Amino acid sequence: MAELKYEITEKIGVLSENAKGWTKELNMVSWNEHEPKYDIREWSPDHSRMGKGVTLSADELAELKELLAGIDLDSFE
Amino acid sequence: MAELKYEITEKIGVLSENAKGWTKELNMVSWNEHEPKYDIREWSPDHSRMGKGVTLSADELAELKELLAGIDLDSFE
Repeated sequence: MAELKYEITEKIGVLSENAKGWTKELNMVSWNEHEPKYDIREWSPDHSRMGKGVTLSADELAELKELLAGIDLDSFE
Repeated sequence: MAELKYEITEKIGVLSENAKGWTKELNMVSWNEHEPKYDIREWSPDHSRMGKGVTLSADELAELKELLAGIDLDSFE
């Protein structure tokens, strides 16, 4: 089975924690020793297991930041 | 094969577009007719196919917004 190497190089923040202690986090993660990318993903309490997530380039995260800053989240509820 | 019903109920913004025209987007998406959730994901040009992504609750997106507003993205480069 193929091996996926990863390293969380920067913990930026936690978005939520569920009843089992898994946390949804924004981090910088290096995949297979490539340059780290921004990453939003669920992790087990000891970060040995990961859930589904999405990686974002610096440009994509900057775009997301601008997008979120410009909208009223309550308007979508 | 199981069927996944989904509907993009609100297009909030596009984070990037790749060479094949797939776009990484922030939307509100209803999965299997449940209440829509925020969703960051890649979509094919006609939105008939989707890539990996992550769904976020309103609280998680608000947390992400606050997190991004408070950090200098350049500091992680």
